[in-house]
Amino acid sequence: MSFTYDETIDGPLPTVDRAELAAALRARAPALEILTDREDLRPFECDGLAAYRTVPLLVALPSTIEEVRAVLMEATARGVPVVARGAGTGLSGGAMPLEKGILLVMAKFNRILDIDADAGTARVQPGVRNLAISQAAAPHGLYYAPDPSSQIACSIGGNVAENAGGVHCLKYGLTVHNILKVDVLTIDGELVTLGSEALDSPGFDLLALFTGSEGMLGVVVEVTVKLLPKPQSVKVLMASFDDVERAGGAVAKIIGAGVIPGGLEMMDNLAIRAAEDFIHADYPVDAEAILLCELDGARDDVEEEAELVGALLREAGASDLRVARDEAERQRFWAGRKNAFPAVGRISPDYYCMDGTIPRRELPRVLKGIAALSEHYGLKVANVFHAGDGNMHPLILFDANQPGEMDRAEALGGRILELCVEVGGSITGEHGVGREKINQMCVQFKRDEIEYFHAVKAAFDPSGLLNPGKNIPTLHRCAEFGAMHVHRGGLPFPELERF
Amino acid sequence: MSFTYDETIDGPLPTVDRAELAAALRARAPALEILTDREDLRPFECDGLAAYRTVPLLVALPSTIEEVRAVLMEATARGVPVVARGAGTGLSGGAMPLEKGILLVMAKFNRILDIDADAGTARVQPGVRNLAISQAAAPHGLYYAPDPSSQIACSIGGNVAENAGGVHCLKYGLTVHNILKVDVLTIDGELVTLGSEALDSPGFDLLALFTGSEGMLGVVVEVTVKLLPKPQSVKVLMASFDDVERAGGAVAKIIGAGVIPGGLEMMDNLAIRAAEDFIHADYPVDAEAILLCELDGARDDVEEEAELVGALLREAGASDLRVARDEAERQRFWAGRKNAFPAVGRISPDYYCMDGTIPRRELPRVLKGIAALSEHYGLKVANVFHAGDGNMHPLILFDANQPGEMDRAEALGGRILELCVEVGGSITGEHGVGREKINQMCVQFKRDEIEYFHAVKAAFDPSGLLNPGKNIPTLHRCAEFGAMHVHRGGLPFPELERF
Repeated sequence: MSFTYDETIDGPLPTVDRAELAAALRARAPALEILTDREDLRPFECDGLAAYRTVPLLVALPSTIEEVRAVLMEATARGVPVVARGAGTGLSGGAMPLEKGILLVMAKFNRILDIDADAGTARVQPGVRNLAISQAAAPHGLYYAPDPSSQIACSIGGNVAENAGGVHCLKYGLTVHNILKVDVLTIDGELVTLGSEALDSPGFDLLALFTGSEGMLGVVVEVTVKLLPKPQSVKVLMASFDDVERAGGAVAKIIGAGVIPGGLEMMDNLAIRAAEDFIHADYPVDAEAILLCELDGARDDVEEEAELVGALLREAGASDLRVARDEAERQRFWAGRKNAFPAVGRISPDYYCMDGTIPRRELPRVLKGIAALSEHYGLKVANVFHAGDGNMHPLILFDANQPGEMDRAEALGGRILELCVEVGGSITGEHGVGREKINQMCVQFKRDEIEYFHAVKAAFDPSGLLNPGKNIPTLHRCAEFGAMHVHRGGLPFPELERF
Repeated sequence: MSFTYDETIDGPLPTVDRAELAAALRARAPALEILTDREDLRPFECDGLAAYRTVPLLVALPSTIEEVRAVLMEATARGVPVVARGAGTGLSGGAMPLEKGILLVMAKFNRILDIDADAGTARVQPGVRNLAISQAAAPHGLYYAPDPSSQIACSIGGNVAENAGGVHCLKYGLTVHNILKVDVLTIDGELVTLGSEALDSPGFDLLALFTGSEGMLGVVVEVTVKLLPKPQSVKVLMASFDDVERAGGAVAKIIGAGVIPGGLEMMDNLAIRAAEDFIHADYPVDAEAILLCELDGARDDVEEEAELVGALLREAGASDLRVARDEAERQRFWAGRKNAFPAVGRISPDYYCMDGTIPRRELPRVLKGIAALSEHYGLKVANVFHAGDGNMHPLILFDANQPGEMDRAEALGGRILELCVEVGGSITGEHGVGREKINQMCVQFKRDEIEYFHAVKAAFDPSGLLNPGKNIPTLHRCAEFGAMHVHRGGLPFPELERF
């Protein structure tokens, strides 16, 4: 395995006896479920980024706040690191365990505590699945807007840790825009409430700071989310293009006209063909790109917008334009897109999913750059992305059994992210940094900026026990990586300023 | 003056010779404009909270980032505190100077650097006025959404410092939801970029942390804001009610029906009469309350929503309902609301404007509580508020020339804020904490929470030179204030838990 797993993170930690730690935890919390057998630990060795695997020292499955506190207190007493895990669907290795660390699995915190339909809020435990919130809110005509592709399985606590997005975040925002309040336990075992049910909260905005902090500042034990009324009407348009850049231009036209679609997604030919073979969504397999544009809202408004968007797509050079005739066809159009990743998995032994974000105007330039890099590294890249908000998911196709291909895939992925940074974008849109993109953080940020991240981390977790080695690189690591930084453009790609 | 000005903030600071400091600043930055004459300093002795006044040691008016850096470096070298100031329109004393501190006035940073109509963004210097951004964006059919009442005068840098809101923040969010990127100088003189032009930024969300931090973490030197397309159509409804609680119920009905108005404002009888006397907005002076509801969007959609809202208002018991017939009448309806504060100023020698935020469902209960407190303290209270988002602006009427009245006004104001906290709300919606609400922070937050605020502050400004004595109280102050904390309800009002 050549993915840059950093042994130095785990290496210098104290070696703790597994049985002794388990006994100490049982002494603090007799009812706490603990796993120590290798057989039981194996299923937890990775999250959705399966290329990075480590069997944890021990798994704790608390079901009360007191039990979480007991784990954190014992960890603090012994200097043992703690990695919190929701459903383990994350794609950047944020919940990857440490060999010498406790994996704190929040799966038992799975209760919906309260739905207040008048206020449009739900108070839930962190292990509740994303889709379960919308299902529970449905009888009130409400739903929870952020919808990562993994929404059937992923947990709201994990969504908070990663600031998860989804197809609808163009219109409805990321997780941070859809939560009001989070209760967290800090590494000291203190229960702190961040945010409030009111519009704004005085003092520093610790709720926003915490959202997307990837388990480095505390452990989420309760979340209050906003619920939105379900739109009266939903419509999906699918436009085909002979040219990927022209499809990118259509995105600019739609947004420029003041339309904010519920979703605006693009797929290139390789992704279209893979999806069509798998799902039979009736996609145009000869098109160089398709755009899927979903409009939602009041019925008349949606009709009016659909006409406008249709005209804009034709103007932008769409070679074909279809409107889903009914709910079944709408679902089929989306099924192709939502299954694009597994579809690509069927045509390639392995694939590596990137998550760069760029200013929308740079779409054509970055697509060209990816094509050039793909050729240079001799690996195919399928492009599937949230075009409306410039969040790209290039899928690099490779075969891990071919010597050198995995290295090339990793190098190509890194270069794509650096390209995103060069045009003023960022190395992650919604998947987080985790273990995967820790090196690219050295490209994204200046030394000073990384120092402020560390200072903020130390304000909450001075001994650095919460999820070490993820999200924020050490300056030492950046020096070793040998690149820091291109920082928002200006430097000629592919040469990077040396640290 | 009995407002709780805290001498201990300024007291232990080193006494610095004004002329010597000015000379040192000139040595670092020869072109820097510096004011040291008492005559010249006087206009800067307060911000919009005129009850708190101090003449600063010195005013610096930089016009380049290098000059700002020079001021911060010299301040660091001498241990002299720095208070940054935008247009000075803030209502919580956040920009109030320190007798022994530098006032850093950002008025010369007044250039709009770039408008990118395709991306829907504007890059501006911090001293640019809020309204000037919308004016510059207007030829592109765009505008900047947050609109504090002071938008003619207030600066975008101040808006970032206070996380300013406005009538339209119910639908379009606060400042933090409408900015993409901020360049700041830290107290060490480091230039740090927070956020990015892309959808999301990796690492911790320092942009959100910085927004609303009231000048305690750094000095804003550039802001990139989002611009929105101007809505095709706008409509305002005015409903009269014989009963304030019924008006509160109507707010719940509208929001509960899934309508998100552009603005949803309430005024009670005292405010209605004051505004009508001043502006002649054709308000119903016998109504106990009016609701102003603005709907914006596509033409058909607005028409449809207006019908729905009209029906809901009637159902909720509106005694009269009017729709502004044209733009002139719409402007008149809003002029009454936007001038409610000065209108109240005409009927009372002094008034004290509060800024509590509560969950919407608690509106009727809090209005009752305010009425009871008003009677107890023997002072009239006019209620004007952003009803849609539960942000209340009770205006306490008093006469500073009547012995004891100012003390009573301050005490009443504090009790109203504590009531807001008790029902699950917060002590500020959009005006910030500043110097004014520093004691109420002890009511809002637990000891642990305030400690985390201090730890975050120290991560950016370890020697505490940036705007000391505002926003975050010391634990010592909370102990002296003698109350900590009621923390989100549960304790019987008016008894407070003792610290």
